[in-house]
Amino acid sequence: MTLETLSEQRCFGGAHGVYRHPSAACAGPMRFSVFQPPQVAQGKRPVLYFLAGLTCNEETFMIKAGAQRVAAELGLILVSPDTSPRDTGIAGITEHWDFGEGAGFYLDATQAPYASRFRMRRYVTEELPAIIAANFNADSERSGISGHSMGGHGALTIALTHPDRYRSVSAFAPIVAPTRVPWGEKAFSRYLGEDREAWKNHDACELVARQRFPGTILIDQGAADNYLLSQLRPEWFETACAQQGQSLRLRRQDGYDHYYWFVQSFIEDHLRHHAAALA
Amino acid sequence: MTLETLSEQRCFGGAHGVYRHPSAACAGPMRFSVFQPPQVAQGKRPVLYFLAGLTCNEETFMIKAGAQRVAAELGLILVSPDTSPRDTGIAGITEHWDFGEGAGFYLDATQAPYASRFRMRRYVTEELPAIIAANFNADSERSGISGHSMGGHGALTIALTHPDRYRSVSAFAPIVAPTRVPWGEKAFSRYLGEDREAWKNHDACELVARQRFPGTILIDQGAADNYLLSQLRPEWFETACAQQGQSLRLRRQDGYDHYYWFVQSFIEDHLRHHAAALA
Repeated sequence: MTLETLSEQRCFGGAHGVYRHPSAACAGPMRFSVFQPPQVAQGKRPVLYFLAGLTCNEETFMIKAGAQRVAAELGLILVSPDTSPRDTGIAGITEHWDFGEGAGFYLDATQAPYASRFRMRRYVTEELPAIIAANFNADSERSGISGHSMGGHGALTIALTHPDRYRSVSAFAPIVAPTRVPWGEKAFSRYLGEDREAWKNHDACELVARQRFPGTILIDQGAADNYLLSQLRPEWFETACAQQGQSLRLRRQDGYDHYYWFVQSFIEDHLRHHAAALA
Repeated sequence: MTLETLSEQRCFGGAHGVYRHPSAACAGPMRFSVFQPPQVAQGKRPVLYFLAGLTCNEETFMIKAGAQRVAAELGLILVSPDTSPRDTGIAGITEHWDFGEGAGFYLDATQAPYASRFRMRRYVTEELPAIIAANFNADSERSGISGHSMGGHGALTIALTHPDRYRSVSAFAPIVAPTRVPWGEKAFSRYLGEDREAWKNHDACELVARQRFPGTILIDQGAADNYLLSQLRPEWFETACAQQGQSLRLRRQDGYDHYYWFVQSFIEDHLRHHAAALA
């Protein structure tokens, strides 16, 4: 596996870098970005994966969330993958902003023609961590996961599926019940087909009913988010967590909307939440 | 004068907004962005103008510098204008990344066909402050100015020309001697014509030899900046300040390059520098 460094630039005493590599999971090149805090010079550091939302790429979180200052203080490695494979050549795959390229939904597609390339679950949970472990001074035993919107869906479903691999989880304005909202229904029917039972493996509300995550889940949700009622419905996850006895800290933030002006306002709390669990 | 709100979003308890208005100075619509800290609800707050660099627009600084957190703490209003008029229709005006649209150099052009539209000096120092005073809870008597690269040139030359209007000044990787480097020579010859004496009114090294700024000028410069020798030459400004007795704090930051990963690493120090002078 060849890891190509596209850029590396000093930031807060550490380094922000963008990298590209041939991906077996996605059967083509994939890009991701990493912030290495200055403490990697002294030894292995914990890793926080951040999954971005619809239309975003591997740099969106790094550019817009303002996370590096606190990550440098806490000694957290930040890793943000692209949101899907790119240049797949699949007919119509770039025609939708909420499906296809830029909208991989962090699952492994089972339906043609998507199944050969759109395998973001395997990519994020297996291939990317192996690359991080092999190429950065990362302590893979101490990994956390977070994300925004579609990426919040990814973080919650991945952590609830693999509580052994991730010690901490948080999300900003996550899609918590994709099987019951338009974004999820559109993407899941195409990636996973019409068997709605199979969809449940990728629905945070369904997953938390099966097993608890061993730690508190932190979620921030803007109360002025235009997608609150149509796509997000955090109260459904709140109810599911209450029924399961899952520890959840859901904060509704007055006046905040869906975007990175909101994420950057609360990212410090999330980084400290993860750092405490990964210490 | 009609001020059109293109967006306003909550951020760190304040608000990030983008605005558009018809500009007399630039004879067409202009855009700028403002971060209002939460303290504007209680009364007038000081204003820091931030001028962006080549190819940037009114949102670059707001998105990439991570300034809002500290501005919210300090109660500083942040204002960032676009770097030039847009859609001017002047032949060839979008063909260069270092001249024309996106590269106004914060001066008033005197040469046709630029003189009718490219009047960024008058815009930034007169028209925009009047709009800010009329539409935001700003204490115009307490204004500071900063900028990056071409915008650092703008901040230094504007503060040295109008030390009565700006109480504080700082810059990141500024062009300090545009009359002697390729970026400046290209832009000034087109905007100002071939009379190099006229250029000197827009050269920080020349201006500081005429009068001191009543306060310390803070400059951060990445030591690994690829433009250091060809375009920036901070040592020339250091010498000019020493000869004039101008208080200057020039910090060379090891390993940092020219871009916003560098700016965001040190923006907090700049905001505190301005807030102290504007208190």
